[in-house]
Amino acid sequence: MKHTLLVLLALVATLGLRAGDIALPSPRQTGGMPLMEALAKRQSIREYDTRELSRQQLSDLLWATFGINRPDGRRTAPTANNRQEFDLYVVLPAGAYRYDAAANTLVLVTSEDIRDQIAGRRFAAAPVQLLYVADLARRSEKDESQKLLLAHIDCGYLSQNTGLFCASEGLATCPRATLQREVAAEKLRLRPDQRILLAHSIGYPKP
Amino acid sequence: MKHTLLVLLALVATLGLRAGDIALPSPRQTGGMPLMEALAKRQSIREYDTRELSRQQLSDLLWATFGINRPDGRRTAPTANNRQEFDLYVVLPAGAYRYDAAANTLVLVTSEDIRDQIAGRRFAAAPVQLLYVADLARRSEKDESQKLLLAHIDCGYLSQNTGLFCASEGLATCPRATLQREVAAEKLRLRPDQRILLAHSIGYPKP
Repeated sequence: MKHTLLVLLALVATLGLRAGDIALPSPRQTGGMPLMEALAKRQSIREYDTRELSRQQLSDLLWATFGINRPDGRRTAPTANNRQEFDLYVVLPAGAYRYDAAANTLVLVTSEDIRDQIAGRRFAAAPVQLLYVADLARRSEKDESQKLLLAHIDCGYLSQNTGLFCASEGLATCPRATLQREVAAEKLRLRPDQRILLAHSIGYPKP
Repeated sequence: MKHTLLVLLALVATLGLRAGDIALPSPRQTGGMPLMEALAKRQSIREYDTRELSRQQLSDLLWATFGINRPDGRRTAPTANNRQEFDLYVVLPAGAYRYDAAANTLVLVTSEDIRDQIAGRRFAAAPVQLLYVADLARRSEKDESQKLLLAHIDCGYLSQNTGLFCASEGLATCPRATLQREVAAEKLRLRPDQRILLAHSIGYPKP
């Protein structure tokens, strides 16, 4: 009975994929560079090759940044009072997606290639643009500026995970606060409470 | 001639140590847990054993958090526009110190044990209290709130390095924004521009 239920749930999860969604391969939760070496190699690289990342690399990158690392749903990055107020939006040549960590799926938001519209040419060349979107509605502080300050610390946690993953994987990246926020918010259909705090362009370094 | 100069500089650096300063052993910049495993193990642990860390662990912890990883003085954590506006203050049973990353030295600020005065009993039990102090005078934005927001993102970078180092090293830690800021600022003789954004208590997990 329990087994039948699990099979049914798996079916529903699969059927839950809409056309255009991308089911990611399971993230590798072992391996990578020894931590101290990844820290020694951490740097900002701003010149990208156009070569795409594999689905496995994408899955690993997203899990490293803000994946679920415990059965109770807690993540690779802490958030103040465990509010988990962040969503990762993934902008690829094929379109823009929201990372659903629990389903390990990229949920299609638009099939337009919006990289050029949100980033300058140098950064838009990278095959992956990651946007760190804080949903302030998920934070419980009464004071709006306190919400924002805590979300900014939390954003740094996620962003450093990205930076260390890229160092370990030999990928180029660089956090940046400058991007076309209004265009991005419109294309990604964000609510006013959803704030794009940071972006990372990610790809192989330009040879 | 060049060699003599280097010897002289090393002598000056050693003589520059005042009584009470602690010269740290060179940080290990290799080894540690594979990154993906450190990410899998990252969690907040809030119950500490009183056992002290070795000088080597302390050096590694501080280097991992915000050490210099390149000849041009850049660090293991990025800061917006490379302003490097953070100082790490290290509160130990023997006193409170400022981490001088270039000299790899703990510079004595007070030989008082102030752990109990800045943290509640549960956190004060940990042998190491790390305070992340942003010096807003080093940031160049005109708008004070913009300075603060960027410093908060940067603080997250440093804090995540700490969290991953502790996961790799089998140490307990947890970032927290709640501490006796006014007492700490007075004891550490901070200027008004120096803001304690976050604290980590660090030690072995309680058995």
